[in-house]
Amino acid sequence: MTSTLPVHHLLERHRHQFPALANKAYFNYGGQGPMPQAALAAMQQAHLHMQQAGPFSNSSNVWINQESQQTRQTIAAELGVTAETITLTDSVSTGCNIALWGINWQPGDRILMTNCEHQSIIAVVQEIQRRFGVAVDVCSLMATLNAGDPVAAIAQHLTANTRLVVLSHILWNTGQLLPLGEIVAACHAYPTQQHPVRVLVDAAQSVGVLPLDLAALAVDFYAFTGHKWWCGPAGVGGLYIRPDALETLQPTFIGWRGITTDANGQPVGWERGGKRFEVATSDYALYPALRVAIATQSEWGSVEARYQRIQTLSAYLWQQLKELSSVHCLRTAPPEAGLVSFQLVDQASGRSHRQLAQFLESQGLMVRTILNPDCVRACVHYLTLESEIDRLVVGVQQFCQTVG
Amino acid sequence: MTSTLPVHHLLERHRHQFPALANKAYFNYGGQGPMPQAALAAMQQAHLHMQQAGPFSNSSNVWINQESQQTRQTIAAELGVTAETITLTDSVSTGCNIALWGINWQPGDRILMTNCEHQSIIAVVQEIQRRFGVAVDVCSLMATLNAGDPVAAIAQHLTANTRLVVLSHILWNTGQLLPLGEIVAACHAYPTQQHPVRVLVDAAQSVGVLPLDLAALAVDFYAFTGHKWWCGPAGVGGLYIRPDALETLQPTFIGWRGITTDANGQPVGWERGGKRFEVATSDYALYPALRVAIATQSEWGSVEARYQRIQTLSAYLWQQLKELSSVHCLRTAPPEAGLVSFQLVDQASGRSHRQLAQFLESQGLMVRTILNPDCVRACVHYLTLESEIDRLVVGVQQFCQTVG
Repeated sequence: MTSTLPVHHLLERHRHQFPALANKAYFNYGGQGPMPQAALAAMQQAHLHMQQAGPFSNSSNVWINQESQQTRQTIAAELGVTAETITLTDSVSTGCNIALWGINWQPGDRILMTNCEHQSIIAVVQEIQRRFGVAVDVCSLMATLNAGDPVAAIAQHLTANTRLVVLSHILWNTGQLLPLGEIVAACHAYPTQQHPVRVLVDAAQSVGVLPLDLAALAVDFYAFTGHKWWCGPAGVGGLYIRPDALETLQPTFIGWRGITTDANGQPVGWERGGKRFEVATSDYALYPALRVAIATQSEWGSVEARYQRIQTLSAYLWQQLKELSSVHCLRTAPPEAGLVSFQLVDQASGRSHRQLAQFLESQGLMVRTILNPDCVRACVHYLTLESEIDRLVVGVQQFCQTVG
Repeated sequence: MTSTLPVHHLLERHRHQFPALANKAYFNYGGQGPMPQAALAAMQQAHLHMQQAGPFSNSSNVWINQESQQTRQTIAAELGVTAETITLTDSVSTGCNIALWGINWQPGDRILMTNCEHQSIIAVVQEIQRRFGVAVDVCSLMATLNAGDPVAAIAQHLTANTRLVVLSHILWNTGQLLPLGEIVAACHAYPTQQHPVRVLVDAAQSVGVLPLDLAALAVDFYAFTGHKWWCGPAGVGGLYIRPDALETLQPTFIGWRGITTDANGQPVGWERGGKRFEVATSDYALYPALRVAIATQSEWGSVEARYQRIQTLSAYLWQQLKELSSVHCLRTAPPEAGLVSFQLVDQASGRSHRQLAQFLESQGLMVRTILNPDCVRACVHYLTLESEIDRLVVGVQQFCQTVG
């Protein structure tokens, strides 16, 4: 209870707020973060309030608008931007879809995408390509994980017809942290024929991990979710749109939340700012839950302190895995964030990554497999205990010794 | 506890399951239905289960897939169709967007829409018109509320280039129930140049009200929500797509839920059936909550019995309002479903519909205003008590007597 308590005691107490952490060693923060009890309670409380006030009434509509606006403000403050630049969405994918479908594509336009993007984003880009006759270029960032320059790898694939670059701030497969500011600067400075090169970022693995100042990064579109590193509920995320890019983007999926109407209730325009891309009814109880989740992270420490601890822990895991002869870490240097990806050296029968993940889950150690590149991904958060990492390494060892 | 209990006793007990009904007389079922306590509990239970099992793990992924499939099955059974025809969405608007953006529009194509559609749908149709050079025809169903033939009103606006007719099964403003089977038959029989005339239905006010057999109605796209007449949670709804129409519709907003991938995790196709239009992570805890809500309705009585009681109650409200000299009901005959729309005869200063709704809300009587036509809408469900209707009528009388 005093400030002289060592860090791991404070953390043990802090962790008691997360029911999911009680019965397992959790390494899937990049899939979904564990919710604090207070966020679950806030959600339930919000539902009860809405039943009390309505559920549909003037009073509950006022409450919904206030909750939405407060949530945009809380998110904006974390990202170093204003609330008006934030669209509330249900997922990272929806945010990327809003950006990708909102551009007035012309045949001959080009999209540049990295070879490390999530299948959700690849699939949207492929459909945009098919529908509008847009060309897609792919640059290899996989090759820059341990050597080479990702900025150059991207810049050398820009063309006079490139309208959009699609990449992740932290690559979901290898865990590489991209120098986003430099990449955006290179894209924005590139001399194109007609439209500036815009940059769309899949921020699934960066929001809640890195200290962020999106205004300074000058990124155009930044799509994120609350349910991974922020440990909020599944089903609420957002999209940041740079003010300069807002008017170039048209709403696609449309509903009453994003439009303005005249005295006869007829649509006549869009809401100001990011709200114009919000569609219709959603589970508003998630909004206070996300704010509570974000506040719970801050109670333990600043985002800088959390990021520092994430780096310390991922280096610790990486170092131990590196010492196992049966395992090959994708990175030759310590990870830059919380994602640690590794491969089994010998994937003989009964030793696939899928079987390793299943074995570990049966031991209460949660990791996931990735298919491109074929590997296992273990994520550490500031919430992770060194003892959990030790258990994970023992689990990997056991699997390699007992099977095959 | 015996079958000899009169209906109103059974209903009083049934109503105790709905916290929202305890502190008000509720007439906004068409905006959002009150949730049963068991649905709120199912949601909380689902959240706790996911924290226990993961939240991200093989085990929780299995649970999510099962919950999703069971929910599609429950919905499908209510609509008289198979689970594979159902896409889970977050709202009616999203369902309509999926259908409207999924058609490969060509310049010169025409959309026929009624003049009684919700602003959400009007706004999407306007944007489709702008982006693809599609023409929009509007037919007046408002004029057929008390006389005339809605089927003829629609049929006479069909053209050789009409590809889609957009209408509601029950009009959200006037409460009119459209003869959907006849309308669909007329559209499908219409001799077009190239594509058959498809029918997209905004089913916000019909699902949970009418006994439905969508397969028999032969409707192409039927977009609905769980949070209105089914009394489920806000944030989960669905879209029915007729099997014959499925392959003509392309996914637009896209994510991992709707795609199939190869051994390297690269997108190679779409999931079978309606699942291909689902995008990414959402609040899965809403799924069991919706199923519990639907089951709670069935506990009171069959959909036929519920619809019959809705009609009895709306006729009772309509009759009483008709007897007030200060009020004009939009319909000259009893309503066909639960929506009862009426106007103040004299909207002088201090007597606007907005002020009436606010006055009623201050008395614990929840109704809403509609702008086109300018009116007040009171909804009755099978859950409504005759005594609540009496209180509403007294409230309207009081407003008219005390103001102006």
